[in-house]
Formats: sequence, C-alpha cells, structure tokens
Amino acid sequence: MSKARLEAFSDGVIAIIITIMVLELHAPEHATWTALLPLWPVFLSYVLSFIYLGIYWNNHHHLLQAIKHVDGRVLWANMHLLFWLSLIPFATAWMGQNRFDAQPVALYGVVLLFSAGAYFILTKALLALHGHDSVLAAALGKDFKGKISPAFYLVAIPLSFVVPWIACALYVLVAIMWLVPDRRIERTLFQ
Amino acid sequence: MSKARLEAFSDGVIAIIITIMVLELHAPEHATWTALLPLWPVFLSYVLSFIYLGIYWNNHHHLLQAIKHVDGRVLWANMHLLFWLSLIPFATAWMGQNRFDAQPVALYGVVLLFSAGAYFILTKALLALHGHDSVLAAALGKDFKGKISPAFYLVAIPLSFVVPWIACALYVLVAIMWLVPDRRIERTLFQ
Amino acid sequence: MSKARLEAFSDGVIAIIITIMVLELHAPEHATWTALLPLWPVFLSYVLSFIYLGIYWNNHHHLLQAIKHVDGRVLWANMHLLFWLSLIPFATAWMGQNRFDAQPVALYGVVLLFSAGAYFILTKALLALHGHDSVLAAALGKDFKGKISPAFYLVAIPLSFVVPWIACALYVLVAIMWLVPDRRIERTLFQ
Amino acid sequence: MSKARLEAFSDGVIAIIITIMVLELHAPEHATWTALLPLWPVFLSYVLSFIYLGIYWNNHHHLLQAIKHVDGRVLWANMHLLFWLSLIPFATAWMGQNRFDAQPVALYGVVLLFSAGAYFILTKALLALHGHDSVLAAALGKDFKGKISPAFYLVAIPLSFVVPWIACALYVLVAIMWLVPDRRIERTLFQ
Repeated sequence: MSKARLEAFSDGVIAIIITIMVLELHAPEHATWTALLPLWPVFLSYVLSFIYLGIYWNNHHHLLQAIKHVDGRVLWANMHLLFWLSLIPFATAWMGQNRFDAQPVALYGVVLLFSAGAYFILTKALLALHGHDSVLAAALGKDFKGKISPAFYLVAIPLSFVVPWIACALYVLVAIMWLVPDRRIERTLFQ
Repeated sequence: MSKARLEAFSDGVIAIIITIMVLELHAPEHATWTALLPLWPVFLSYVLSFIYLGIYWNNHHHLLQAIKHVDGRVLWANMHLLFWLSLIPFATAWMGQNRFDAQPVALYGVVLLFSAGAYFILTKALLALHGHDSVLAAALGKDFKGKISPAFYLVAIPLSFVVPWIACALYVLVAIMWLVPDRRIERTLFQ
Repeated sequence: MSKARLEAFSDGVIAIIITIMVLELHAPEHATWTALLPLWPVFLSYVLSFIYLGIYWNNHHHLLQAIKHVDGRVLWANMHLLFWLSLIPFATAWMGQNRFDAQPVALYGVVLLFSAGAYFILTKALLALHGHDSVLAAALGKDFKGKISPAFYLVAIPLSFVVPWIACALYVLVAIMWLVPDRRIERTLFQ
Repeated sequence: MSKARLEAFSDGVIAIIITIMVLELHAPEHATWTALLPLWPVFLSYVLSFIYLGIYWNNHHHLLQAIKHVDGRVLWANMHLLFWLSLIPFATAWMGQNRFDAQPVALYGVVLLFSAGAYFILTKALLALHGHDSVLAAALGKDFKGKISPAFYLVAIPLSFVVPWIACALYVLVAIMWLVPDRRIERTLFQ
C-alpha cells in the first residue's frame, strides 16, 4: 500500500488545523491598540500551538520518510493521531480566552499528552510493519525526546491547578527541546 | 484520464470536512469543568463522525488503489459522494447540539444512508469502466459490509423517533463493523 | 515551469471553497423539522454552487491535462479565476439567506459571469503558450459551451430584477448543459 | 530530504489562508445594494490580501523550483514564513472592518514587513544549503524587489498614523511592483 496518499491526507489535515486556529483571533471592533491588547493571551496560545503543530508535522514528515509502506493498522494509528491534533484548536481557544486559567491549561496538557501517546502508537505500528532491524528502527534509536515529553505533561497537568504559569512554562520547555535540531533520523538515513 | 488529481481533490475535501467539524466545539466562556461538561454530546457526535469520515477516506483510498483510470462519469460519481459527506458536519452539529434528539438522529442516519448510496454508485461507475474481470471486481468481491450498512441505517432512521439511543447504537455498530480489519482488497491485490 | 504545483494549489483552493460553503448551513437551534424547514433556500443555493464548483474543478482538470507547461501569465490567470470562484460562497450565502431575492440573484449571476470570463482568460493564456496547433487548441475546438454560458448570465442578471426565479432557472440550465457529458477534450486526447 | 512534502504542506496552508479570508465577507442581512455597500472596505482589503498571498505563493513556487533539497533549518524557516502569512487574514479583517483606520493599517504593514523578513530568512536558509554558486544564487541575483519592499513598509507604517490612505497606496504599489513580471529566475533556469 502506498504511503503517498497518507502523507497528502495528513498534510491536508495538519495544514487546516494550524490555519483554523487563527479564526479564534477575532478582529476587535475598535481600531485602537487598547482594543487589540486583550488579545495577547489568545495570540500567545496561538503561537505555542502553531509551534507544536509545526513540530508534529516535522516529525511526521521525518517518520514517513524512513518507511516504505503502510497497512490498515498504520492508517488508523495515523487517523488516531490526527484526531488528537484536531482538538488542539479547541484547547488553544479555551486556554487563550481564559488567560491561562487552571482548568484550560490542564486540558491543554491532556490534549498534548494524548497526542504524544497517539504518535507513540503510530511509531509502534510502523515498527511492527518494518521490523526492528529496519532503517526506521535505527533512525528512531532510543527516542529520548519522545519518552521524556509525556513525563513533562504528566507533571504539568496537576501543576496547572496550583500554578498554571509553571505548567505553561513546561509546555514551552518541551517545545524548545523539540525545536533544538535532532539530526538522529537525518544522520542515520543519509550516511 | 489520470486518477492522481481525483485522489488529491478528494483528500482535500475530506480533510477539510473532518477538520471544520471541530469548529462546532465552541470553547466555553468560563474556565471550569462545569462549563465544559455540557459539550459532551457535541464531542461524542464529533468522535462518531470523525470515525465515519476516516472509514470513508480509508475505503476511498483502497478503492482508488485497485483502479487504473477514471472518466467523466467517475468524476461526477465521486463529486456526488463528496456532496453527501459534506453534509455530515451539519448533521453532526444538529445532533450534538440537541443531545441526540429524535429528528437530528434521524437526519444523521439519512445523511449516512445517502453517503453509502453515493459510495455504491461510485463503485458501480468504476466497475463499468474496469470490467467485471478486473482487479477491482475481484477485490470488491461480494462487498458484504457495503450491502449490510444501508440496511442498518434503514432500521435506525424510523427507530430514531421511538428510541433515539438505539438508532445511535446502530450507527456505532456499523462503524465498528468497518473498523474491524477487512483484508479482502489488500489480500487480492498483493497476493 | 511545472504544472503540478499549480494543480495542487488550485485543487486545494477549490476544495476549501466548496467545503466552507457548508458552514452557512447553520444547525437550527431546535430539534424539529419545523426548525429545519426554513433552511431549504440556503440548502438549494448550496447544491447549485456545489455543482458549479464541481464543473469548474472538472473543466480545470481537463484543461490542465491537455497542457504541458505553465508560465507567470498562466499562474496569474489561474489566480484570477480562483479569486472569482472564492466569491461564490459569499454570493451563495446572500442568495440563500434572502430566499432568492432580486439583488442577491443578480449578484450571483455577476460572480458566475466574471468566473466564466476568468476561465476564458486562462484558456487564452494557455493557448498563447501552447500555440494554435497544439493538442489543447484541438481539444478546446469551438468551445460552444464556454461561449454560450456568459450569454445566459447576461440575460439572467437583468431578469433577476423582474422575475428572480427565471434567472435562477437559467443558472440551473447552464449547469445542466455542462453536466451533460462533453467528450470533446477526452476524444481528441485519447484517439 | 525531499522537498515535495514541503511544497504540498505550504500549498495547503496558503490555500487555506487565502480562502478563509473570504469568511470575513459576511453576507448582509438585507437583500439590497444599500446593505451590500458598507462591505466595500472589507472587499478592498480582501482583494489586496488575495493579491499579496498570490504573490507569496508565486514566489515560493519559483524559489522551491530552483532548489534540490531541504533540511531541518529550511523546514522551520518555511514554517516561520507560514506563521506570518497566517496573520494576514486577521490584519485584513481588522483593517477592512475599520475602513482603513490608522492603527489597523499600521498593523497590516507590520504583518507584511515580518512576512517579507521571514521570506528573506527562508531565502538565506536555502542559500546556506545550496551554496553561492548554485542555480538558486544565480536565479535570485541581486533580489532588488525583495530588498526594496521592506523599505516601503517601513515608510508606510509610521505614515499610517498621519495619512492612512497613503500607507495603503504604498502597499498597493509594492503589490503592483511584484505583479510586473520578473523573468529573472525563469530566464536563469531555462536558458
């Protein structure tokens, strides 16, 4: 089964998710900076989610480059990942509109946690298909970042109810960790 | 005529349909679980429709993999399928916002029924083009699932007016039936 | 210059235009047929525009299949076509919400007229690039449908102010004319 | 690393950005020209942004045609460009709804300025990867337009607070400058 349509469909869904989030940035009624100012938490949460979706697209791109074919299980593992990613705009809007209040920040962490879990399941489905000696297995290696991220979310979620800002800082930290270039897959593939 | 653009266009439309549904999940005004709770029927109907659209995309993917070319009739049969699928977000929103009330649940079934019919017509248009000895014909086989699904919808629609929850259970049942891997097409193609 | 990205971008834009129109079908607040009924003009105008956009996508698909390359002029002629098509959801919403009243029906015709004009300009830009002896020129032939459609719109627009329903009937007539298979391009290409 | 998915994803995002802008053109409640008339500033700002996004898509198309491969840095430089472009619908809506008032016109210029900066960074990331003797380097040449555009925005932004209409005229001027065919890249590539 070809992987091209899986890529095209995932690209489409992620592109739409990333773009409809901006619809939550409602243009204020008045033409003043004062009217614009209250949008900053909505804007900040948009930036954070944009980066997270960028990371997912980036990782998805790398992951599928290391594979050769897909099966029904992979198709559904991928759909499952897209489902959790599709909830990010909702969680982003709730968090932004309530200025990083406790429950919305916790829910945002829950959506990130399930997205990370869905990505892990997709990785496993691909490994089951390609074998543990494959380019993919070598490329993934120990997947340190993939394993440490859920731990951060698990700490951040309960913390949201105590100090929401620290939970947010942890989400930002995980994003930065992923942004720092990780040449593992690239190195293994092209050496 | 090439099938690549038909796939790309269908992928685009299905990706957008699946993603705009999430716009019906309006972020509640207040930052409490109590404010979030009333969203559960909207969320549940979102999950159900997400799975249905995933099934359609998946089946469409398999169907087009078994074919070689398309003609004008296929293009329009495909457009007709996309039309009915495009009504799913509307039916989903109405059903979710009215907490699975009789009429919305019936309408949801009607949209599923016409989508299934449109898929059947698309299959026929492809068979007319590829012949009954083709890989496609062998791959489709008796198409048990495709034939039993409309029967379920036809039972569920009148039932909606009596016990809406049983109609919903039937929709879920059909979805589960499709999720259970059906290796018919894959097996025929790659043996 | 390759035509693949032009196709992909156009597919994307047309897929989104066709799908966001359905957002105008707002789920009614109450769960009754009575609440659903007033939506019929919005639904009818959605169906008409869906068919028109399907025709444009179909024709665009055929047109680009007959060509080999594109230049800057073609890119902008294509963008110009997408601009007019992007106004169809607006015209559709205005017409549907006002139950096919005079001015909205006239505006709908104006958007159809300019879309047809933009398509004609795109054809010319492609002919200028491929020459009058090309497959494209042979495939287009006398382009009877392309020439008669604007005439219908030009009659329908003023008629909207007298009897809007006849103008609508003319729009439907043009759509039907295009739906009737036209094997010109296919025949020339594949003989 | 292949550039195909980068193109597909960018096409998707730009196609969605360009199309969701039209959602700001809300169909007026009444079916009269008088009700339609107040939409003209929203319409004009839609036209301007449509052209700007068309220019970006066009340039992006040309830029990626001159390159052979991408790396992680290019992926993120591209994502950064898409981020600023994704703010165009917001700036467009604010400017249109406030009839080209001072602050919104200034913000529009800021978004254009950062988009131009992000495009410049993407160019640099691609040059770093392909070398200064590459087809890309030759094709870009002195990039006069790319260097003069930010200067125009930098003049227009403060001017917005004095005479907003002149700032708008400068934005239009930059757009026209880009629309005038620039055959540099095409010439270098295909000679």
